Amino acid sequence: MKVFNFKDVKLEGNLRWLIRGPNFDMRMVEIQPEETPWTQHVHPWEHEIFIVEGKGEARSGDGGEPFEEGDVIHIPSDEPHAFVNKGETVLRFICCIPADVDLEQIKPFNV
Amino acid sequence: MKVFNFKDVKLEGNLRWLIRGPNFDMRMVEIQPEETPWTQHVHPWEHEIFIVEGKGEARSGDGGEPFEEGDVIHIPSDEPHAFVNKGETVLRFICCIPADVDLEQIKPFNV
Repeated sequence: MKVFNFKDVKLEGNLRWLIRGPNFDMRMVEIQPEETPWTQHVHPWEHEIFIVEGKGEARSGDGGEPFEEGDVIHIPSDEPHAFVNKGETVLRFICCIPADVDLEQIKPFNV
Repeated sequence: MKVFNFKDVKLEGNLRWLIRGPNFDMRMVEIQPEETPWTQHVHPWEHEIFIVEGKGEARSGDGGEPFEEGDVIHIPSDEPHAFVNKGETVLRFICCIPADVDLEQIKPFNV
């Protein structure tokens, strides 16, 4: 068993890789106010997300949905997406993905 | 894409099953003060946990480690464990597990 604070894991770009497991990984994503670190993109694996702090908008194609602390977001595989911080403080969310994904399969999606 | 608040998912026992994905599931665990809903048990799959609210103790065998909001816990497969709320308010944590586990494989662990 390992117990540690998420801030003990180094922030690399917008990600802290909290746990790399045999089946799936848990990351903390951090986005500063008005920052859009990724334009819309698509990949053949899902995101399972829990909003820890702040508020934002999840974009997919022409659409977008607001979210805030305590919200859950499921993005199925092959669905285009991007996240924007719409608050005045840092946006933090847990984002889990399957283990050992091939980052070469991430493709830009042009709206 | 689905966006919803965790409280929109019914609490069943101590669990809200937030997302059942093709590779892994995301649940919200809720434990009331001084409650120990599960005695120590063991199963052949891991837990990846993020503490959302409250404080508690993670027990494993003869040992225990305190945790609080913002902490991350990784419990590898086949490691005995139990969780106790050590605060005066509800304890809530995100707990992810692989999809389609066989609940028959959960075994009690006697300390």
